[in-house]
Amino acid sequence: MGKGNPLFSLLILSLLCHSISPITAVGSPSPVNIWPKPRVFVWPVPHAILLSPLFTITSPTHQYLDAAVSRYLRQVTTEHHHPLVTPAVNLTSASPLRTLEITVNDLAAPLHHGVNETYILRIPSAGPTAYLTAFTPWGAMRGLESFSQLVWGDPPQIAAGVFIWDWPKFEHRGIMLDTSRNYYGVDDLFRLIGAMGGNKLNVFHWHITDSHSFPLVLPTEPELAGKGAYGASMVYTAEDVQRVVEFGLEHGVRVLPEIDMPGHTGSWAEAYPEIVACADKFWWPAGTAWPDRLASEPGTGHLNPLIPKTYEVLKNVIRDVTTMFPEPFYHAGADEIIPGCWKADPSIQTFLANNGTLSELLEMFVNSTAPYIVSQNRTLVYWEDVLLDAEIKVNPSVIPQNTILQTWNNGPNNTKRIVSAGYRAIVSSSDFYYLDCGHGDFLGNDSQYDQQPGSKPGNGGSWCGPFKTWQTIYNYDITYGLTDDEAKLVIGGEVALWSEQADPTVMDSRIWPRASAMAESLWSGNRDETGMKRYAEATDRLNEWRYRMVNRGIGAEPIQPLWCIRNPGMCNTVQPFGEA
Amino acid sequence: MGKGNPLFSLLILSLLCHSISPITAVGSPSPVNIWPKPRVFVWPVPHAILLSPLFTITSPTHQYLDAAVSRYLRQVTTEHHHPLVTPAVNLTSASPLRTLEITVNDLAAPLHHGVNETYILRIPSAGPTAYLTAFTPWGAMRGLESFSQLVWGDPPQIAAGVFIWDWPKFEHRGIMLDTSRNYYGVDDLFRLIGAMGGNKLNVFHWHITDSHSFPLVLPTEPELAGKGAYGASMVYTAEDVQRVVEFGLEHGVRVLPEIDMPGHTGSWAEAYPEIVACADKFWWPAGTAWPDRLASEPGTGHLNPLIPKTYEVLKNVIRDVTTMFPEPFYHAGADEIIPGCWKADPSIQTFLANNGTLSELLEMFVNSTAPYIVSQNRTLVYWEDVLLDAEIKVNPSVIPQNTILQTWNNGPNNTKRIVSAGYRAIVSSSDFYYLDCGHGDFLGNDSQYDQQPGSKPGNGGSWCGPFKTWQTIYNYDITYGLTDDEAKLVIGGEVALWSEQADPTVMDSRIWPRASAMAESLWSGNRDETGMKRYAEATDRLNEWRYRMVNRGIGAEPIQPLWCIRNPGMCNTVQPFGEA
Repeated sequence: MGKGNPLFSLLILSLLCHSISPITAVGSPSPVNIWPKPRVFVWPVPHAILLSPLFTITSPTHQYLDAAVSRYLRQVTTEHHHPLVTPAVNLTSASPLRTLEITVNDLAAPLHHGVNETYILRIPSAGPTAYLTAFTPWGAMRGLESFSQLVWGDPPQIAAGVFIWDWPKFEHRGIMLDTSRNYYGVDDLFRLIGAMGGNKLNVFHWHITDSHSFPLVLPTEPELAGKGAYGASMVYTAEDVQRVVEFGLEHGVRVLPEIDMPGHTGSWAEAYPEIVACADKFWWPAGTAWPDRLASEPGTGHLNPLIPKTYEVLKNVIRDVTTMFPEPFYHAGADEIIPGCWKADPSIQTFLANNGTLSELLEMFVNSTAPYIVSQNRTLVYWEDVLLDAEIKVNPSVIPQNTILQTWNNGPNNTKRIVSAGYRAIVSSSDFYYLDCGHGDFLGNDSQYDQQPGSKPGNGGSWCGPFKTWQTIYNYDITYGLTDDEAKLVIGGEVALWSEQADPTVMDSRIWPRASAMAESLWSGNRDETGMKRYAEATDRLNEWRYRMVNRGIGAEPIQPLWCIRNPGMCNTVQPFGEA
Repeated sequence: MGKGNPLFSLLILSLLCHSISPITAVGSPSPVNIWPKPRVFVWPVPHAILLSPLFTITSPTHQYLDAAVSRYLRQVTTEHHHPLVTPAVNLTSASPLRTLEITVNDLAAPLHHGVNETYILRIPSAGPTAYLTAFTPWGAMRGLESFSQLVWGDPPQIAAGVFIWDWPKFEHRGIMLDTSRNYYGVDDLFRLIGAMGGNKLNVFHWHITDSHSFPLVLPTEPELAGKGAYGASMVYTAEDVQRVVEFGLEHGVRVLPEIDMPGHTGSWAEAYPEIVACADKFWWPAGTAWPDRLASEPGTGHLNPLIPKTYEVLKNVIRDVTTMFPEPFYHAGADEIIPGCWKADPSIQTFLANNGTLSELLEMFVNSTAPYIVSQNRTLVYWEDVLLDAEIKVNPSVIPQNTILQTWNNGPNNTKRIVSAGYRAIVSSSDFYYLDCGHGDFLGNDSQYDQQPGSKPGNGGSWCGPFKTWQTIYNYDITYGLTDDEAKLVIGGEVALWSEQADPTVMDSRIWPRASAMAESLWSGNRDETGMKRYAEATDRLNEWRYRMVNRGIGAEPIQPLWCIRNPGMCNTVQPFGEA
């Protein structure tokens, strides 16, 4: 549903008839804010009313919306948020809010890509009833989150006389987490998904397996985790996956699985050494040049496309994964095929000696797997490499129609290459959206840090350094440089946390509030009404939101001293920095 | 006591007579390790024995050692550490270890700078008794920590047939934490100090106050915190301080208070506006150049040396602080005196108009405060700026004899300037030891992050970026470029966590394990027996130690995928990186 939808206009009108007039945008800063900032937020006379001690939420019956309603009801009545800056609004003695009444047009709409997340929230100037209208249960969840952020204090009060009309700019707004290099417990995934829902993010891209460990227990191929996981306690069982998927549904977050292949599969060799080329080798043989490495980083192994057994295992894997994950997207990886790995395998050497090429090998692999994935009613997602890698890539004709490519290299240049070739794109540019960058490298005997004092430290030894600040993330325009038609093919973006130097101890602080920055940028944009980037105004709002997240149990890192928050504007600069 | 001490030779001999022979250094890697690595660690026949279910520790009665003994007894019997890599040693059926017998030569030695921390630990090849001998209770605590790190498993077993002789390379090994820009609870300080003891760090440099908040409740000047703290719950009372000091004593960690002055005192103006120049101003007035700023960052205010009231307040502050903190060092700050701040004050303008200079003003301040601090039996510590600042600095004659200067600028160059001028130095070079660097800047409307894609990100917008990796910290030689005589004046180092972008949510992960890297470098050095930097070998040990810290409740950040730890050497590189 777009703004031009006649049903929507009718809805708006019907709401407005017995609601707020006139609609005037409140000049920033608003005394109470929602993160990400709604598209339309009208609060003509800022004031607050109490939540009635009998406050309740009514909604149509729906398995997942019911859970969300219960959760938000508990949250708004017990959170007792005390804002860092006390909202400059009067608590009026008007009758308290007794009910939030939720209406949903299409209760059957599944949580799929492109589902309508629009909601309209109207909180009257005086009680007893507020109205939340959405087309789908998932839009209602977005509205519930917004509602919850308008509540503060003890006893709880809420911003009153508010009208919100809100919908996302991009349909795909995600976080990628790598659970192979280091393991995360199901509770960590719950905490992540819960925080995602709070930020109106809707896709948990779960990079489950890689060369380092294979934690997913597959019913048909249990040995992959049985031998390839870090340990019996460091796995995800079918029941775990179901809990994660259900948890996602209760928070409006899709769980998109990635089984990376044919590269990044060293861990598969623990169960099936015969299908993995160059497994368990030292990643960069002494005396060889970088192009001759066996892997992009320690941990070698690529599935061997020449072995029939490879596809027997893969069909089981794919079928199990599609059974366990209802999500219609299926991420099949295909990043970083390293020539040296395949070339190290005797069977592949023979293939190459007979005038085969590595790109043909990859095409063979894609041809033998992609149609099967599609046959399971899945939309394929690949990393961009499958098409854009400089050395090993497939002919576009091999990639199924409708495939989505996720870009991570070369900033907007590769986004443009993807969409101008007609594919849809998910943007995860490592220059902007990689959350792991900037903490140096993890190699065990890296001499680059043993330098004479005074040497230039450069980017600190991280291939994608420096650290991507929240502002860097916030300011990135993921359709930069595209024509309007091209931009329509950008379905959204994902920040990514690779786990070479991350695990549950730092998951929260690496992800939040930087993922919140992307969340707003992809929900309502990074510009104000005049088209100017609004990072300055966003700082105060993000501080407040980060503080509320911390109180909700998310260990988001602080972005300023408390003093800055208490003294608005005093931590700004009015001139370019760097003359020191 | 040095290696040449005759008493020590006697002690060694007496121990050796009924102990291990011959003394041979174990080639690395040892199957069980202690962090920081001991100076002498002899384990000729690696094997393990059980801790008896009746295991106990005997020691002479001493208030703080008693507490440490109780704590370590509980730890070794209940920790049940399961190493990431199972130690390749046999658990022999020899009689279990029944007792750790502690002997201390000088029970009265206070925990002061330079106190002897040497210990000798001998664990026999078979029970029943291990011996820990130390000159002081504080050395015994170091030995207890080492002992605890030799224990693993359930039931607990311990490395047996071990001889350790251990003492620190540098006497001052600290962590500075800024509790003014953001507040940390007493529990956070406990967690920090506990982890410090585990890393054999011995100085908690508590940067208590700054321009942003004044959390220290002083008996004689309660209004400073009453009005200058972030809130009634965000203070440190006299009881809190006593608990922190006592907790430090139980862990062998001195608590060195810093009351920064005369700069970094904006928060004092809440109680005493009359003694603070340029308080509550915008830090960098529009249209002015960087040299005309009022503060080094948002948050203005310098104590005014011309106002008699300044010294009345200061004497109360200093007297209260020296009463609350038994530590004989007193850090009086004196960093970053910004000309624009003092110049903005009318009384100082008059002073300058009468041919006074800003350096004279600082001399007046130091002359009026330093002798009083010294009269309280304190050794003064200042930041280097008081002597080395390019613009405002005192004549060396003004600085009391015996004063220690803490360096943070220009790497080894400023260390050399300090010690060649005859002062003792504490090294906190921001190029190596500043833990906050690398997460960008905190200004509210910083346009540097709104760049065209493809722009060079530089160091990521942090003045002291990039992030200092553990390897960078580990490899730094704090006496680099000094003569032997000059090097003797370097009493040690401190990593520093400034809190513009840190608070309790990220304290652990910002500090650990990077402070562990410094801890080893300053305890036993960063080189192996052949004089080569040992960062490669340290990686595996630091992984294991980081893992044990996490299990002890310290949220240290991971430095590698678990895969690397499980596959020793496989995450190394054998050639310089960067050809990609």
